[in-house]
Amino acid sequence: MRPVYLDNNATTRVDPAVVQEMLPYFSEQFGNASSMHAFGASVSGALKTARERLQALLGAEFDHEIVWTGGGTESDNTALLSALETQGGRNEIVTTQVEHPAILNLCEWLQKSRGIKVHHIPVDARGRLDVEAYRRALGPKTAIASIMWANNETGTIFPVETLAELAHEAGALFHTDAVQAVGKLPIDLKNSEIDLLSLSGHKLHAPKGIGALYVRKGVRLRPMIRGGHQERGRRAGTENVPGIVGLGKAAELALAHMEEENTRVRALRDRLEKGLVQRIGNAIVTGDQDSRLPNTTNIAFEFVEGEGILLLLNKAGIACSSGSACTSGSLEPSHVLRAMKVPYTAAHGAIRFSFSRDNVEEDVDQVLEAMPPVIEKLRALSPFWSKNGQTQFAPSYV
Amino acid sequence: MRPVYLDNNATTRVDPAVVQEMLPYFSEQFGNASSMHAFGASVSGALKTARERLQALLGAEFDHEIVWTGGGTESDNTALLSALETQGGRNEIVTTQVEHPAILNLCEWLQKSRGIKVHHIPVDARGRLDVEAYRRALGPKTAIASIMWANNETGTIFPVETLAELAHEAGALFHTDAVQAVGKLPIDLKNSEIDLLSLSGHKLHAPKGIGALYVRKGVRLRPMIRGGHQERGRRAGTENVPGIVGLGKAAELALAHMEEENTRVRALRDRLEKGLVQRIGNAIVTGDQDSRLPNTTNIAFEFVEGEGILLLLNKAGIACSSGSACTSGSLEPSHVLRAMKVPYTAAHGAIRFSFSRDNVEEDVDQVLEAMPPVIEKLRALSPFWSKNGQTQFAPSYV
Repeated sequence: MRPVYLDNNATTRVDPAVVQEMLPYFSEQFGNASSMHAFGASVSGALKTARERLQALLGAEFDHEIVWTGGGTESDNTALLSALETQGGRNEIVTTQVEHPAILNLCEWLQKSRGIKVHHIPVDARGRLDVEAYRRALGPKTAIASIMWANNETGTIFPVETLAELAHEAGALFHTDAVQAVGKLPIDLKNSEIDLLSLSGHKLHAPKGIGALYVRKGVRLRPMIRGGHQERGRRAGTENVPGIVGLGKAAELALAHMEEENTRVRALRDRLEKGLVQRIGNAIVTGDQDSRLPNTTNIAFEFVEGEGILLLLNKAGIACSSGSACTSGSLEPSHVLRAMKVPYTAAHGAIRFSFSRDNVEEDVDQVLEAMPPVIEKLRALSPFWSKNGQTQFAPSYV
Repeated sequence: MRPVYLDNNATTRVDPAVVQEMLPYFSEQFGNASSMHAFGASVSGALKTARERLQALLGAEFDHEIVWTGGGTESDNTALLSALETQGGRNEIVTTQVEHPAILNLCEWLQKSRGIKVHHIPVDARGRLDVEAYRRALGPKTAIASIMWANNETGTIFPVETLAELAHEAGALFHTDAVQAVGKLPIDLKNSEIDLLSLSGHKLHAPKGIGALYVRKGVRLRPMIRGGHQERGRRAGTENVPGIVGLGKAAELALAHMEEENTRVRALRDRLEKGLVQRIGNAIVTGDQDSRLPNTTNIAFEFVEGEGILLLLNKAGIACSSGSACTSGSLEPSHVLRAMKVPYTAAHGAIRFSFSRDNVEEDVDQVLEAMPPVIEKLRALSPFWSKNGQTQFAPSYV
């Protein structure tokens, strides 16, 4: 039986076409893009092509609005730290309770070490942002608002274009961690007010270790990594040529196939979700089903431990996750589900299935077959389940 | 005629064996190392192997003393910024006039924006550090001394083990930018007092976009990039698995072949150097010939512009550089040669030839043939040369 990979929000398989595009830049066209000779010049052209391809995926007006980085976390950190330096006199950040650790842990450190005030905007039970609370938190002290485009755990999409406009009304910059959105949602930055956008290659079938920060023309950026003059002085360090070429190719593929793949992937996801809820009692689909990534479902199975589910599914050759890979190891239920006030007994048993264009119908079949006995077995061991009885909670959507 | 690549201090060709080792981690074992399922577990083992291979090359006592980064510049920046945070009450940095921009430009910004005092220790005409000045600069306010192991432009080696001991006598941390040393010089960190060491994969036949920071056990490190718990909380962001695997393999190859390759490469370098000085008048070998990387020669050709030499050599299929790739585009002569007080008329015509194990005798032959007419042609156009006359300066070593 082929292994089933449904953890594409953690990382994706590098598309073989992406690897092919990268290969010549390891041992043939291996020059340093900053060098003046032919070895350098040949890679400069490749970087230009990659930049234009990513520009197209993002709908950016200028290719030089893209700054290559080492990944989404670096992009996120750079955006926030830069805003605190360039937005003179403003020392507050507005963000959400459900951001990725790349934002939340940085903000926690900024609070503790630099006295930056951070507003964590809450979400409702479906994971939707409290836009009124967001509006109230913005003010003359706000340096930057940083709101993710789509949540990595539930797939819930935030109205970032509107949120960017509200931030600008308060004179603040607007950044979005779009790591989960880029390649999955149509993006048209030139017709938005978004100032800064972070993305990560390995979430869209490019390799790990490469990412980008979109910086709207005219927005000042203070580099986080200082040294050489690369990236117009915005990010020092020899350019990761194969990674950049790979991300460019992945962007091209994502744009070309987005519509058709989204339709197909959404159908797979919906069949899995409906099938699991039909087959298994006390299973709650979390997140905003009216505005959600097409590839993600997060289902809370009451009265079981997510870790137990993952272990048994792993034995059956199925890979998925509880919460995000970046917080794994923690025994606490996900901060996202806590912010949504998903009941504790359910949040502990939440499993995220995240699809990509590599998935097929058979993957759904395998999970639909494997999952009911896994849950049954674990619930048989659960003291809560036997106490509460099997029929107390009906399958329900939050 | 095969192209001649003699710019290995800018970047190296990725060894095909390194690419082979990396390949499975793009599209087969593509899991996120932080994930709990089989896709994640299979890459965790690969990361462990890579860490042990780099540990062996560095002679480090523990494999967890290695923190993977996005490259040498990030490692350098992390080391210095961390020291300023962890060395309470100490707000001075001791470094040299000839460091890489990854150190110098960061220090310049720290001076301007944070009032950090930076001591730039001078070098003599041969590029040797003024150790007495270094000793005097160290004091109770020194947070960290950061001295490169070997200079990227001239190859001059600094006595970093001794310098580390002196730093410790003053209670300061010691960091070395060893980007040009790792893979070229034997390193035995467990028997040194070096606290922090930066390296970059692409300088030793691993790919671009991956580097490491060695952090001696017991030395506190404040992360520069914050987010997930990767690298024991010392560097957030999904691990660049193929890059790490590649750097591990490159480390293994470097260690296995260092002695034999250094002997061969040194002979090639010496033949080129002697041959050029014999064939071309007014050519000055810069740097400390008693203590120099085996792969590097930097020769200043008086009364010509380095850029002109590079252009003509490029036409002849020969790649080398004037100064470092990270400062190219500047019309000023290299800050390294200025610190060495190489006469202006010579510093402008300085060319660095840097070898690797990929080079062969024919590369030397081609340069020895191409170079004399190039210099002759350029000098014929030079107003300084005609004014000063062809015989005024004899070939000389500084």
